[in-house]
Amino acid sequence: MSRPARRGGGRSARQAQRAVADAVLRTHLARTLPPVHVLDEEGLAQIEQNAETILCDVGVAFQDFPRALELWRAAGADVDGELVRFPRGMCREIVQAGAPAAYVQHARNPARSVPIGGDATVFAPSYGSPFVTDLDNGRRYATLADFERVVKLVWMLPHLHHSGGTVCEPTDVPVNKRHLDMVYAHLRYSDKPLMGSVTAAQRAADSVELCRIAFGGDLGDRTVLTSLINASSPLRWDATMLGAAEVYARHNQACVISPFILAGAMSPVTVAGLAAQALAEALAGMAYCQLVRPGAPVVFGTFASSMSMATGAPTFGTPEAGLAIYVMAELARRVGVPFRSGGQLTSSKAADAQAAYESASTLLPTMAAGVNFVLHAAGWLEGGLTLGYEKLVMDADQLGMMEVYAKGVDMTPNGQAVEAFGSNPHGEHFLGHPHTLANFETAFYQSSIADNNSFEQWSEEGSLDAAQRANRLMKQMLARYEPPPIDDAVDQELREFIERRKAAEPDAVV
Amino acid sequence: MSRPARRGGGRSARQAQRAVADAVLRTHLARTLPPVHVLDEEGLAQIEQNAETILCDVGVAFQDFPRALELWRAAGADVDGELVRFPRGMCREIVQAGAPAAYVQHARNPARSVPIGGDATVFAPSYGSPFVTDLDNGRRYATLADFERVVKLVWMLPHLHHSGGTVCEPTDVPVNKRHLDMVYAHLRYSDKPLMGSVTAAQRAADSVELCRIAFGGDLGDRTVLTSLINASSPLRWDATMLGAAEVYARHNQACVISPFILAGAMSPVTVAGLAAQALAEALAGMAYCQLVRPGAPVVFGTFASSMSMATGAPTFGTPEAGLAIYVMAELARRVGVPFRSGGQLTSSKAADAQAAYESASTLLPTMAAGVNFVLHAAGWLEGGLTLGYEKLVMDADQLGMMEVYAKGVDMTPNGQAVEAFGSNPHGEHFLGHPHTLANFETAFYQSSIADNNSFEQWSEEGSLDAAQRANRLMKQMLARYEPPPIDDAVDQELREFIERRKAAEPDAVV
Repeated sequence: MSRPARRGGGRSARQAQRAVADAVLRTHLARTLPPVHVLDEEGLAQIEQNAETILCDVGVAFQDFPRALELWRAAGADVDGELVRFPRGMCREIVQAGAPAAYVQHARNPARSVPIGGDATVFAPSYGSPFVTDLDNGRRYATLADFERVVKLVWMLPHLHHSGGTVCEPTDVPVNKRHLDMVYAHLRYSDKPLMGSVTAAQRAADSVELCRIAFGGDLGDRTVLTSLINASSPLRWDATMLGAAEVYARHNQACVISPFILAGAMSPVTVAGLAAQALAEALAGMAYCQLVRPGAPVVFGTFASSMSMATGAPTFGTPEAGLAIYVMAELARRVGVPFRSGGQLTSSKAADAQAAYESASTLLPTMAAGVNFVLHAAGWLEGGLTLGYEKLVMDADQLGMMEVYAKGVDMTPNGQAVEAFGSNPHGEHFLGHPHTLANFETAFYQSSIADNNSFEQWSEEGSLDAAQRANRLMKQMLARYEPPPIDDAVDQELREFIERRKAAEPDAVV
Repeated sequence: MSRPARRGGGRSARQAQRAVADAVLRTHLARTLPPVHVLDEEGLAQIEQNAETILCDVGVAFQDFPRALELWRAAGADVDGELVRFPRGMCREIVQAGAPAAYVQHARNPARSVPIGGDATVFAPSYGSPFVTDLDNGRRYATLADFERVVKLVWMLPHLHHSGGTVCEPTDVPVNKRHLDMVYAHLRYSDKPLMGSVTAAQRAADSVELCRIAFGGDLGDRTVLTSLINASSPLRWDATMLGAAEVYARHNQACVISPFILAGAMSPVTVAGLAAQALAEALAGMAYCQLVRPGAPVVFGTFASSMSMATGAPTFGTPEAGLAIYVMAELARRVGVPFRSGGQLTSSKAADAQAAYESASTLLPTMAAGVNFVLHAAGWLEGGLTLGYEKLVMDADQLGMMEVYAKGVDMTPNGQAVEAFGSNPHGEHFLGHPHTLANFETAFYQSSIADNNSFEQWSEEGSLDAAQRANRLMKQMLARYEPPPIDDAVDQELREFIERRKAAEPDAVV
């Protein structure tokens, strides 16, 4: 077969090149295939009715946050202590009257702004891990240096469209100050869109302020943050999350309103039960944001999985969780808001076969269901407790494959290739055929991780498994990292703001 | 949480118990979800037209097998040397007039007979590997002892419905005699349905004769073998396969008529091009079986994947291959015959993350596309060159998860769990709720491989990865193996037939 001219450095260098083929700016996947349905109209309508029953009869608690209760009372809900019960249809109407079906999250580099909603799918890395692991150093508490390394890797990985938020917890920085370093790292070492802090209203306000500086003045109608607001499922929103959501909504920044459910613990064990509860929680949370500021962008988010009924441990990549993604994606589309779910989830402690089976078994339903914003799309290990460096790079390679799925089947004349059959001598291979030569550079997704060589060649090269190859690739990438440009004055202003804010309060551990 | 009484032996023994929970006889998955569509009517009709163009203008070679050419001439095809060109629609009409839409493949144990076609999915193990590997002994040529071990494991794995055929090549037995030992092993060490030999017409006849003995007399209308007939793609059927197919069709035994395509080599690189060619090859092969015996059961089979355009190596678990499965499953349904494709394919040499990503990325489309007969559903490594013992056990666990997908979402009152919300104190967990307790034994698929424990517990237990856990499980299973019953006289007759046949010819290497 005719081959392209080779760049120097051999196969491993070519794979590294592919992994960071940054010349093509990808901002999202444009899905061309219709979403997959696992329930019919009747089933979906029934779950919607059940969610309304939960909202009306059981209610949702808004804890330790009187302002939310006042808003609900004014809106006509039944407020009983901290418990709010909603007339049937009320939350849904509030959301549908205000929340946009889709929005653009602007990036510091405008070419990297991402569409959230509709037929777009945006991939963001793992979120919230206190630990990191790699093959060289094993599992340990994450530090700010880890955080910055992960941000750099994510910036270089072309199939991650979004820089994410708490990609890991910089545990060497005081809890009440680390959000400043995290937001700064996203703004300085990446120019992809980012997420803000949600661990206190003030930290959300700091996130907004840092973006105001980085984006050059008033954010106006620009949404530049999409931040993660988790429910205290079942059926509770707490003051911390409500406070952060209030700040973001007031500034027209986006909130991913996410029921957080391990079925059997935070909800009934069944998919239909879990889905009704998640819809109820999400509707109440999204409606709250609309009460704060009508029109504020919100995402129907879910984090839902199963658990081991023997030990109570969370389980991931299970078929029950896959079915839940399909059902909830449909429910979100019927509300008319963007949807967040899925990712590449696993409870495995290592970047092994379990991790990959479970990750792929989460990612494929995520794509087929038509999820819009995919947090935890790369790097997740150990039920989210650990970010794996090798896993990050391996998962990102899988995300690249999703781009091919999103495009579907090429039915152009070139795709049909009818002429190739007529012009190829009968029984001959197609390797040298002009149609093959014309298409071969782009014909197939080329993995940066997979080893497709012979056993003999693989053995000669050290019998490395996928995680070991990912380890090598990750180091090659970090060695090549160069930060995206930033205006010196802006950088200076960001640093000064952070210094001022850090000086203003003593270190704290919550 | 309340827990079920434990059987002795701890977690590992419980996982082994789950892996071989043989009390429940599973014969297939009954899919309740509609198959996923990636092309519309127009696209599918276009590919069908292109296939007819290939059949009519380019033709299909039937090599070194004059009887096939005579049949085609008599049927009205244009026979030019060994090349047969077909009037448009001819092959399709022949197939649709004769081939059943579904059939039952009878097993020696009637409770294990499997339905092939319709909404049923049947999983069969890996096929054709000259090598086997395990963590203890590494990769080596397979022997008859390996073959027997694999048959035993497959018999014990509840989610493999079918014993398969050449689960690995017993390379220590002469090529012209090993089929006898293979068929015997399936009949003696398993009572699941099996596949016959296809490496020569005589070996196919021997396979039929052994089944005649095992099944107690004339097979009559009973189909007891489903055997794999591969094309020499592009657009060729060779004498070996045609001869075997002729024997099976004549005896009303089923043939899986399988184009064997690595796109870019045996077909154009595009999915639509590959699909048109595969349809043309399959229609010609299935129609040939109908000419031999109208009504003989046939399966539209495909083995189709991509290749590395840099090295020419085959690649698996790629999105292009996934899309091809969806398209070809639709084409088979439109013909009206059962469909074979997919599996858990990988080019990885180890049971690592690459193997699992690629396997899951083949299996999920296999399920969603609605494949009826899934060869290579467990054990495949290294592009099929190697059967992995650990991979076999890991893959079989994944197959169990597919059972949950097949069932879809439970919308019974118990599934909706509305009452559970009303009766659970607000904000409380559901762990102790009667609905949870009533459902928890069956709520979630319990993996026999996944480790969902804490990092600390996993570390204390030796930090085993998934392959190491599968190794342990595989040995526990083999230690517990007891063969299914067989009538002594039948066993004696099988052995005598084999002895006679082996004595009748000198050892040969082809």
